[in-house]
Formats: sequence, structure tokens, C-alpha cells
Amino acid sequence: MHQITVCFTPVQFPYYHYEGCNAVAIDILRATTSICTAFLNGAKEVIPVSTIDELKIHTDREYMIAAERDGIKLDFADIGNSPYYFTRDMVEGRTIAYSTTNGTHTINLAAKCHTAAVGAFINISALCRWLEAGDRDVFLLCAGWKGRFNLEDSVFAGAVAQKLIDTGKFTTICDSALAAMDLWSLAKPDLSGYIKKAAQNERLRKINSADVIPYCHELDLTDIVPIYRDGVLKAL
Amino acid sequence: MHQITVCFTPVQFPYYHYEGCNAVAIDILRATTSICTAFLNGAKEVIPVSTIDELKIHTDREYMIAAERDGIKLDFADIGNSPYYFTRDMVEGRTIAYSTTNGTHTINLAAKCHTAAVGAFINISALCRWLEAGDRDVFLLCAGWKGRFNLEDSVFAGAVAQKLIDTGKFTTICDSALAAMDLWSLAKPDLSGYIKKAAQNERLRKINSADVIPYCHELDLTDIVPIYRDGVLKAL
Repeated sequence: MHQITVCFTPVQFPYYHYEGCNAVAIDILRATTSICTAFLNGAKEVIPVSTIDELKIHTDREYMIAAERDGIKLDFADIGNSPYYFTRDMVEGRTIAYSTTNGTHTINLAAKCHTAAVGAFINISALCRWLEAGDRDVFLLCAGWKGRFNLEDSVFAGAVAQKLIDTGKFTTICDSALAAMDLWSLAKPDLSGYIKKAAQNERLRKINSADVIPYCHELDLTDIVPIYRDGVLKAL
Repeated sequence: MHQITVCFTPVQFPYYHYEGCNAVAIDILRATTSICTAFLNGAKEVIPVSTIDELKIHTDREYMIAAERDGIKLDFADIGNSPYYFTRDMVEGRTIAYSTTNGTHTINLAAKCHTAAVGAFINISALCRWLEAGDRDVFLLCAGWKGRFNLEDSVFAGAVAQKLIDTGKFTTICDSALAAMDLWSLAKPDLSGYIKKAAQNERLRKINSADVIPYCHELDLTDIVPIYRDGVLKAL
């Protein structure tokens, strides 16, 4: 039996055992959903960049720049962080340097594990098949929001944990995994309804971007699992 | 309407707004339950001490020393961290210098808020009356376990948040408060049964101390709310 660990925020990452695990970076609203959308629409690669200074290094290259802070597109970026920007016209065949408030830092932390993938509701079944086939302990790292717990990432972690446990090959002794599964059990019957109370819902509403929320909670729009290797995410 | 914030671990504390709040330090298994028990049994004061080095300063004074790390009593301490040690014979009229793995550091962090109290299931109703009378925003700080989320503190935070919201004088836009209340809604019908899956249950079992768990989840054994002022906890 393999163990499942859930970590609710990047600031707690150093306090968990993550060595040797296959990891999933989770930022449902919106970074990891946007990345899965980019690959669904034919992006070649995504380079997750934690800081704005690092991102500026990429502006003289031919990469596309996708970047936001607090939901707002940075002025030197080509596009912001809504999955709706990552259309086939925009991203097909391209390398995207990508930086967001919480999500890309989370991906770079998850990369300290054995292998890191990017997860979202829109690729959840493919992600779980990859984790099951990986035959290792699993570490689910939520982006949260600036050091704080958030509901949507935690509920997603609970959904993944429950799916893995249902295979009979995984178990958990991690309180955050148990709590996440309990939250998922409450959210599952009406996921979009449940997520309405999340703080990020209100933040996105304030910047007129709440229309992405239903899309970010749709299941299995793609079978692609973006995998991190040598600083770059590529479609598995 | 006053806001309720829940912070699941001390490592996340700097990322939340806590200024001006009345705070509650929460370490159900076992520090805050033990402190409430000490006052129930007539202790005069409790000095929460974060580190072992700081605690050693107190060994030449006439204070009683209560201290553990990872559940085991430190060799220079008079007693460890089980609430069962804090009997009337041991503690009545005494000042106790107290240090535990997670709990006392949490109390000292909570003290950065406007006023900090110590909360446990055994004083939950009195605690909620104090918070309601306090007429301020409320910050519920869980000790967790070494930077990790734990179930028992989070469920307690949810119980307090729900009681406060039920007064009609409080609300929340904090995802961790919403999650904590959801966990409480699941735990409430059979609190002792729900908490059996918590990791701390297993840790206490391994050191033959699991017998305190039912006691730590009993409701309202005392009306005393320990309040922090100038480095010392006293009964309100």
C-alpha cells in the first residue's frame, strides 16, 4: 500500500515527508486548470516561473509570456491567467513562460519530489491513472492563496485521494488527506454549488473573471497529464 | 458583524490578518486541554514557554515545570503534558511553567493578537461567551502538529466558528473557517468516533496515552477561560 499525503499550502511543504513521492501541484482557480487547457490546445511546453524577476529573463526570447499577480495580467505579458486565454490560436506549438500569484511557485516546489505533475478537475481521471501506474507514495500539494488554506484546491486533493484509495492500492495516515476527503464528500453532490462559498470566487468576481469557475470544475476534458522535467512542463 | 478567521497551523500565522482580533490558541491533544484542566483544579498561573532553553531558566525558581516533547515528559520537568497529571493535589495555588511540542508556541503566537485565550472542548461554551462579549473579530489559531494540519484542532475551530455564527453577530469569508465548520458538521454527531482517525490518536496510543482522548473531547467541564497577559495565563 502506498501512502497519500496532502499539504494545504506551500508554506507547510517543508514540514511534510515528500521525498520519493510522485507529486501533484494543484491550483484549480486558475493556474493548473490553465496549464492543462494550454496542453489540451496544443501548447508545446510550459515553463513555470516563480518570480516576476525570473520571468523578465524570458521576455527577450521567443516564448509566449503568461503572467498575473492577484488575478491581473502583468503589463509585459502576452496573456494573463484565465484558461480562456489559452486558446488553440494562441498556444498551439508554442513554449509558454508562465507565472502566477500562487500556482507556479507551487509547481516548482512539487518538483522537489520524485516526479511532479499538474492536476486539475479537467484532467483528474488521467492524473489518477498516472499516479496509480506510478506505483509510489503520492504527495498532493495545494497552492492555497498566499500562505492560506483554500477550499477549491483542498476539495480537489480530497477527490484525488478518494479515487486513489478506491483503487485499493493506496491508504493514508495524513490528517489533511482525511480532511480533504471529508470536504470532497460534502462537495461532490454539487461541486459548483459548494465552491460558491470559496474566497477565490469573490476575488475573481471583483475582477470580472468569475465566469471561469464552472469551467475549472468540469471533469475530464482532457487526458493529458503535464509532467515537470528539468524546469519544463510537457504533456505526458 | 465581526469576522472569524481560522489558521490551521502556526507556520501560516504570518499570512493572515490577526491585528485587533481576540484570539484562541487551540491544541486539543493535549496542551490547551491540560491548561484548562490546571485552572479547573486551582492553578494560580501558567507561563507558556516556547523552547526548552527558555524553560530551563525557570528551573531555579519555585515554579512547577510541566514539559514534554513528542509526548514524552522532559527529564527535568515535574510532570508531562497529560491533563491527568494536572490534579488538584499537584497544581492548586501553583504557578506552572509549561512547554509542549506545539501548544505553547501557539499560545505565544496568539498573544500577538489583541487578547489571547486558551480554548478546548472542556471550556468551549465559556470561551464562546467570552468571544461574543469581546465584540471583536476572532482569530482561531490551531497548533496542528509540527507545521502540519491536524484534525482535532480544526474540528474544534469549526465548532467555535459555528457557535459564534449562530449568535448572529459573526460571519466569515475565510476558507479555513468554512472548511473547519464543514468538518465539525461531520464530526459533531459522534465526536469521539470521528477523531479516532486522527494521526495524534495513533501517536498517543504508541506512548500508552490514548486514554486521555475521550476526556479531551468532553464538553464544558469548566467555565474558566485562561487569558494571556504579560507572558502569563490566568483564569478569567
